[in-house]
Amino acid sequence: MSSFKKFSSVIKLQNLALKPIDLTKNLTPERLTHFSASALGFTLLYGTERIDDSILAELFKLAQEAGVMEKMAAMQAGEVINRIEGFPSEERSVLHTAMRDVFDHRQTAEKAKKASDAAAAELKKLDDFLDKIEGRFTDLIQIGIGGSDLGPRALCLALETFHKKGKRVHFISNVDPDDANHVLSKVDLAKTLVVVVSKSGTTLETLTNEEFVRARMIKAGIKDPKDHFVAVTGEKGPMDNPARYLASFYIWDFVGGRYSATSMVGAVALGFALGFEKLREILKGAHEMDHHALTASPEKNLPLISALLGIWNRNFLKLPTVAIIPYSQALHRFPAHLQQLDMESNGKRIDKSGEAVDFSTGPIIWGEPGTNGQHSFYQLIHQGSDIVPLEFIGFKKSQYGTDLDIQDTTSQEKLLSNLFAQSISLAIGQASENPNKVFTGNRPNRVLFADRLDAHTLGALLSYYENKVAFQGFIWNINSFDQEGVQLGKKLANQIIELFKAKKTKQKVASFPLAEAYLKLTHL
Amino acid sequence: MSSFKKFSSVIKLQNLALKPIDLTKNLTPERLTHFSASALGFTLLYGTERIDDSILAELFKLAQEAGVMEKMAAMQAGEVINRIEGFPSEERSVLHTAMRDVFDHRQTAEKAKKASDAAAAELKKLDDFLDKIEGRFTDLIQIGIGGSDLGPRALCLALETFHKKGKRVHFISNVDPDDANHVLSKVDLAKTLVVVVSKSGTTLETLTNEEFVRARMIKAGIKDPKDHFVAVTGEKGPMDNPARYLASFYIWDFVGGRYSATSMVGAVALGFALGFEKLREILKGAHEMDHHALTASPEKNLPLISALLGIWNRNFLKLPTVAIIPYSQALHRFPAHLQQLDMESNGKRIDKSGEAVDFSTGPIIWGEPGTNGQHSFYQLIHQGSDIVPLEFIGFKKSQYGTDLDIQDTTSQEKLLSNLFAQSISLAIGQASENPNKVFTGNRPNRVLFADRLDAHTLGALLSYYENKVAFQGFIWNINSFDQEGVQLGKKLANQIIELFKAKKTKQKVASFPLAEAYLKLTHL
Repeated sequence: MSSFKKFSSVIKLQNLALKPIDLTKNLTPERLTHFSASALGFTLLYGTERIDDSILAELFKLAQEAGVMEKMAAMQAGEVINRIEGFPSEERSVLHTAMRDVFDHRQTAEKAKKASDAAAAELKKLDDFLDKIEGRFTDLIQIGIGGSDLGPRALCLALETFHKKGKRVHFISNVDPDDANHVLSKVDLAKTLVVVVSKSGTTLETLTNEEFVRARMIKAGIKDPKDHFVAVTGEKGPMDNPARYLASFYIWDFVGGRYSATSMVGAVALGFALGFEKLREILKGAHEMDHHALTASPEKNLPLISALLGIWNRNFLKLPTVAIIPYSQALHRFPAHLQQLDMESNGKRIDKSGEAVDFSTGPIIWGEPGTNGQHSFYQLIHQGSDIVPLEFIGFKKSQYGTDLDIQDTTSQEKLLSNLFAQSISLAIGQASENPNKVFTGNRPNRVLFADRLDAHTLGALLSYYENKVAFQGFIWNINSFDQEGVQLGKKLANQIIELFKAKKTKQKVASFPLAEAYLKLTHL
Repeated sequence: MSSFKKFSSVIKLQNLALKPIDLTKNLTPERLTHFSASALGFTLLYGTERIDDSILAELFKLAQEAGVMEKMAAMQAGEVINRIEGFPSEERSVLHTAMRDVFDHRQTAEKAKKASDAAAAELKKLDDFLDKIEGRFTDLIQIGIGGSDLGPRALCLALETFHKKGKRVHFISNVDPDDANHVLSKVDLAKTLVVVVSKSGTTLETLTNEEFVRARMIKAGIKDPKDHFVAVTGEKGPMDNPARYLASFYIWDFVGGRYSATSMVGAVALGFALGFEKLREILKGAHEMDHHALTASPEKNLPLISALLGIWNRNFLKLPTVAIIPYSQALHRFPAHLQQLDMESNGKRIDKSGEAVDFSTGPIIWGEPGTNGQHSFYQLIHQGSDIVPLEFIGFKKSQYGTDLDIQDTTSQEKLLSNLFAQSISLAIGQASENPNKVFTGNRPNRVLFADRLDAHTLGALLSYYENKVAFQGFIWNINSFDQEGVQLGKKLANQIIELFKAKKTKQKVASFPLAEAYLKLTHL
């Protein structure tokens, strides 16, 4: 039996889950007030989750039994937690928090300190670099995929309102040639800086797209593409090459791709678009939330509370998905980033001792902004045969601050009215004589609320989710920091690429009958 | 007991599901060839689903027992199928297919013919209108939400490669004021046409955003905003007003929002961006797939096969979600459209006789393009504790046709190598001594493949999914064409808007203690 199943709190929670609270009868203003917590300008409202005080107490007991605060301390101190006991594994520290540990309350453990010193040095390099290139480039294209794309893209879009005038950021990720062609149709290459991001320097999509763009630069008459290319990569790796890049910024194996948005992977584009000071604010927000996750008592610890509520919904109410719905258009790609962050971290089948798990691990994460979702998939959310827990995100103020009173309310007020109305209606439902107007309610949800989506708040929000995911992995005792599950597809893809190659070069290649059947059936 | 549970095929399929085929041992080239079907330039490869001949035969039996072909005929002929027996309901025909029934094989039933005649008249109006405004506008902003946003946006983006030079299309959907502000920061309003889409003329978000943009136009010194505004709305509705709009194009209550992309809801923007001839190609592709869905025998009927495989995964293998993964960056917002199409249609809790269902209805639909997803959520897809069925979409050729040989293969070949590698690896898995390198396989998936994503293919692809969703609703005997589930949230939101209003106007308003608690807790 797994360590998770052996916790006494787990057995108690299984019993408590047989009769979760009925929100259709019990949601009161007092309950909303009781189940809320605030820190760093954020308020988490979770009275609309199907919990009561005894369940919550047992969830905190679970956190204690799993030693989550000790594990968080070990992670932020740089202990080697990315490992599987007794089997070959990555054997690494997990130090994305060090990338922003450049303010107060710095870690003192040696590994963590070394990592944050290195991060500070890269930040200094970046600051100087941005000064040096000031005025030369209007556009930046980031070439990267997965963590080198989703996080930086979500953050850049989230703060587009605050981009410096005349600075545009684009992303090429997909090996689909239409992706690169589409982006290249929009920029003046003479004024474009290209940031190529690959830790190993060997990612198929990224190297292919880099060559694609270099070829286009040469075609466009740019004599030395080097002057337009920056590498974000491992030191002394194949891409750390001054002959090919104007500058190299370093990343390390103790920062996983999906956790890398606050490393140079995100920092170069964010610094270019927003300026170095706003980049620092993002890092500061993230660092403050890291420190909160590390030090706040469990009952006040926002990412931990969120992690525990997620565990309740996943393992005890048996709900397989989570929808993350920001009531903020600027966050329209943030759910796609969280989808990677969570599913790649916790979509695991073995625990840290190499045993196949006997419980459900990470859920399927999906989402789109509200109010848009209300006019799309909320029909199923309210009346479908399956229940979807929701995590709402909302802000008191809009980013632009420009609004219009129409019929005595602003758009922002209409937006928030919808957010709160959804939270309430999902919980309480509605009875009706007409079966089509029946809403069964009891659809768990919570609201994370802050003042305004600025650089600092965005950094803190990112860290809130990173730490929530880590806490869940700690409780399940899985390794949230590797991704062996992406290897098999990569291996077979390379074999099929060899088949295509062999057609042209007439070389002999290993037979792969299944792949050959696909090529034949699609007339390739 | 529901009609669905009473079908003899359902009982047989329940038994067959106890031992679904083991793909890790049985996937062969012959199997891939055997479980494939082609029509209209599309090939559906479904040997990687967990079926065998006896299951497939029973699924076709289910289609027959449910009378799906008769129901499809009734739908396309305009019979009143949007209804719940014995309760007040919408009582409407469902005639989105009529919007493109303007080519060969036209429906002859009176209602369908009247609808397609009306659609043809609107198309003629649009053709004339586009001629009339030629040269006046560089940008078009569509204001709409839900079906008036997701479908048109997904289609416009999918064909951006083919947009006429200098024509740009933007969308404002969210009531979040940052959405409108962001779009308005990108256009020259003097050269911008605004298309406001609301069937009823009463959608909160859309009316708010329209006023927002009108106010901005006046502020920008445009004397008569009317010359920049077009309405897509119901005839004689509140928005059908020549004093406020340069033109009105009509939509009808027999075309649901999520099925409206080929009506004037999508046609105005698509015609503007692509030209009228390319719009016609989209419609023609959709019409041909409608005709295929209507007339092809079940064993050759692509949307029906896909619907049945979905039912197998959902109701018999008990899988609650579906990921739709286009290996085509141009389709990056297509899954978001299908999310609405499917979840709003089939996320239902009662059947057509008003009985609460005793089986699972529509699944949760989500997805992002490949290869991007491979570097994001595929970890969970391959090794998570839950199984996610996948629907892959692929094309032989890229849109731009511009590609580069790197190491003897093109980007397009690399893209397709990845697509096929994923389909195979998900099915067959991998054994290993290292538990972290074990892939259990048996993860069902199918591939829909076509030559190239052009206007005609896109229209057919859209219709393939519309008809798949309709077929599933027919089998479950649910009403796929209403959306009562969105009403409760709307009602409560309006009550909260009144609370905000009352704060300013000091008017008395109905007390809403739960909402007041939210406002208090968020300091609003």
